[in-house]
Order: sequence, then C-alpha cells, then structure tokens
Amino acid sequence: MNDLARFSINQMTVKQLSMPELVDTCRELGVPGVGLWREPVQTYGVEATAKLVRDAGLAVTTLCRGGFLTAIDPDERARALDDNRRAVDEAATLGTDVLVLVSGGLPAGSKDLHGARERIADALAELGPYAEDHGVKLAIEPLHPMYASDRCVVSTLTQALDLAERFPAHQVGVTVDTYHIWWDDRAPEQIARAGAGGRIHTFQLADWTTPLPEGVLNGRGQIGDGAIDMREWLGYVTAAGYTGPIEVELFNDGLWARDGREVLAETATRFVEHVIA
Amino acid sequence: MNDLARFSINQMTVKQLSMPELVDTCRELGVPGVGLWREPVQTYGVEATAKLVRDAGLAVTTLCRGGFLTAIDPDERARALDDNRRAVDEAATLGTDVLVLVSGGLPAGSKDLHGARERIADALAELGPYAEDHGVKLAIEPLHPMYASDRCVVSTLTQALDLAERFPAHQVGVTVDTYHIWWDDRAPEQIARAGAGGRIHTFQLADWTTPLPEGVLNGRGQIGDGAIDMREWLGYVTAAGYTGPIEVELFNDGLWARDGREVLAETATRFVEHVIA
Repeated sequence: MNDLARFSINQMTVKQLSMPELVDTCRELGVPGVGLWREPVQTYGVEATAKLVRDAGLAVTTLCRGGFLTAIDPDERARALDDNRRAVDEAATLGTDVLVLVSGGLPAGSKDLHGARERIADALAELGPYAEDHGVKLAIEPLHPMYASDRCVVSTLTQALDLAERFPAHQVGVTVDTYHIWWDDRAPEQIARAGAGGRIHTFQLADWTTPLPEGVLNGRGQIGDGAIDMREWLGYVTAAGYTGPIEVELFNDGLWARDGREVLAETATRFVEHVIA
Repeated sequence: MNDLARFSINQMTVKQLSMPELVDTCRELGVPGVGLWREPVQTYGVEATAKLVRDAGLAVTTLCRGGFLTAIDPDERARALDDNRRAVDEAATLGTDVLVLVSGGLPAGSKDLHGARERIADALAELGPYAEDHGVKLAIEPLHPMYASDRCVVSTLTQALDLAERFPAHQVGVTVDTYHIWWDDRAPEQIARAGAGGRIHTFQLADWTTPLPEGVLNGRGQIGDGAIDMREWLGYVTAAGYTGPIEVELFNDGLWARDGREVLAETATRFVEHVIA
C-alpha cells in the first residue's frame, strides 16, 4: 500500500501556502487528503475551494472548525449557533463529512466549568440534527487541559465522549488528537470506547515538544521531534476499528517561518518514518 | 477564629525575601505557617533555618521538594534516592512532617510515560520506610499535564493516588494543589478518595491565569485573579476531612518583581477574601 494513502495534511501546518499552492504541493507529493480551515476557505471562496480540491482529486478529511458554544449571553449564543450552521453548510459544500468542534472557554468572569460544559450539550442538541441533515458529523475535540479556561472546557476524551454519547454517533463523535491526550493514561480505554460506538470521526497528530512558547498555542512539534510515540497511538485507534485518514495538524511558528512546500514534504516524510513504517 | 489561622505562605511566592525577612514579615502579619524550599533553606543553613522559624513560633507546613525519581540510569537513580533521603532529613530537622514530591519528567529520548511512573513506585518503596523512620510523610504532587514530559509524569490525582495507595498512608500521600487539578472533573471524587484514606498531606492554592508565559512555569495567578473557585476546592478537601494548613504557592514573575512584604500582605488579604470569607 502507498505509504501516504492515509496521510492528510491539515492546512494550518502550512498556512503560509495559498490554497492553490497547497493543492499543487499535495498533487506533486502524492498527498491524498487535506484538512481545511474556515478562514482561508472563506478568503479563497467556499465554492472555488470545493472546485479546486475536487479537480485535483484531493479528499477533504475535515473542516476546522466550529464550536465556541459556551456563551451565556443569549445573543452571543444565537450568533454562535448561526455560525456553526454556516460551518456545517461549508463542510457539506467542500465535500467533507467531518466538522471539528473546539468547544470554547469560560465566559469572562465565570469560574463554572461544569455549567459551560452543559451549555455545549444544549448547543449540540440543536446542531446535531442540522449537521445530520447535511451529511456532516460533528467531532468534539478535547483540547489539552492547558486550554481549559480560555479556549476549550472539554479537556479529556472522557469528557468529550460523555457529551457525544448523549447524541447519535452519526451526529456527534470526537476528534482524537495525540497532542491533547498523550499525557492521559485513561485515553487508550477511551479510544476503545469511542471506537466501539463508532465515534472516532477524525484522528490527528502533533508531537509534544518543550519549552512551550508564550500563550502555548504555536508550539506543536513536528512528528518525531517530541515525547509522543505515534505508533502507539495509531495502534490504539486501529485496535478501536479506525481505518480513516490520519491528519497532521501543527501550529508551529518555526515551521511557519520556513518554505511551505519544504515543510509539507518534510511532514510527509516524518509521517512515513514515525507513523507508518 | 482568626482568619489566617490556617494560612501558610509558601516561600516561593515571595522568594525575593531573605529567610529572616520572610520570618519577620510573617510575624508582623500574623501568618502562622510557611512552606519552605530546600535551596533557600540550604543557603541559610538547615539548622539555622530551623532555629529561626522555631524561635518565631512559625509552623513549617511543608518542605518542597523531593522527587525527580524517573531516571533509568542506575547511578542517576542512586543519586536521586540519596538526595531524597537528605530531603527527608532536612524536613525532620525543620520540624515539618510533609515532604512534597515532584516526580520528574521523561528521561531524555524516552517516550514511555508508563515506565517512568513505575520507576517512581520503585523509588517510593525505598523512600517510604526511610521517611517513616524520620516522622515524615511523602506527598506526591500531580502537576498539570502541561508538565508531563519535562517535569512530572504524574498528571492527575488519580495517578498520584494509584501510586500512593501501594504504600501506607503515613508513608505516602498526595499534594492537592488547585493550579494543577482545577480543570479535572474527576478531581473532586479523587479528593474524597484521598481523604478517606488519610492521604491529603497538604493543600496548596494558586489561581489559573492566561496567557501562560513562555515555559509555563512562572504564570501562577494570585488568588482571585483567575478561573479557579477557591471556595469550591476548599469545600472538597473539607468534605474529605482535611483540616490542616492551606498553603499559597505562586510562581509568578510579576509578583517576584514587587516588594516581597507587600506581596505577602496582599496574598494574606486575598486568602481571607477568596478562600475563608
């Protein structure tokens, strides 16, 4: 089998590339899939992006991202739901059936993690059926606990599945991303739980490197540079029945400062060396 | 009851103060307890520190810290065990019965969290009886998962208790520190578990503020400045039967840049406002 058959490059890893450059580089390297982000897609145009990737024979493995569903204020909450419905529409137009959700942090001044998690459930009850109608599955992404206050109150696979399992699997599942869960000794059993329920909607990779940069957003390590045994985690999702794309999503100032084509080629090589081989 | 009756200031919070300045300021403010660190204690002299705090009527609530027990190399491991035995000796001399343990990160090049955790258990089997002989309890501190690779492979109270419960409670228990566990929805039940077993050996506070600084070490928030509901966590340890000191331990570049006496006074005020009142 082609070593890159399951490889997908998340657009954020090489955000210095324009949409046509990204698509061209994937074609040159034999990369079969891309994970896209809403902002660059909107800049290039949703329909235009859909045509570009379709003409290139590229699979869109995920759209990143919806979510930010923790607002208490009713107007803010209504705007968030509207925006998520648009994200579902965009995913359907792009031809992907997976919309990644980053849940959102604590509203300003709030210290109530539990309440915030419940508001996400309320929002999913509205968004799940809408997504299903458009052939899109929502993939709740637990983010590393270091983002719990300002970005995502869902910090573990356990929490993500506790939310997802209130809804049908074809509406709501989870994102399994090594960067966010590698430290968690309960994650392997939770991957099994997710797989048994048909809820592993995407599998993403990034490596854990230190020291973390200020703000801790853009220090995700190139595959093989850090502390995470990628084969071990591929083993867990495989044992759980997952056979889908494996998406590499790196937010890394160092990688963004380099030539994007070179970074994409390097990432494909690392994928083969550290994940597949 | 005196609002500060259970308050203890961890020395690191005001590390700009010399040992005599720290003791004087505690006396002036009516602060009854201090948590000490080995390095400043050694600089001032272990016996001299013991006399200074004893003469001032100050309780030493903890000594920070032992640990760093994950080495694979036999010589490195032997040195770590020796150093921990010295830390126990120092704790006994200082008159505290609690030695806080930070377990250590992954050895260079290793990706094996599970193996590292098992080596900690092996080390505790040697250190626990030694500590008991000196009237000292070891308090495993789970650190926030963002430190899992480079500082502490024990990331949750669950993991800390899984380790501690292999040994008698008067040898090995846990440190409950809000900064490290506030995001974890399982932590309340684990505090109950720890309390039922008599294993809450110390309770420490710091608040969670963002953005995190580079390296994520020195951004622990002053009490009341962040996302953590301190009364909620005091409620959990109280329900679990904990009646001991409440130690405020902040690593914060901003606080360290200020006058240490002013910071200590502010911390005592925040303690009363956000924890006790």
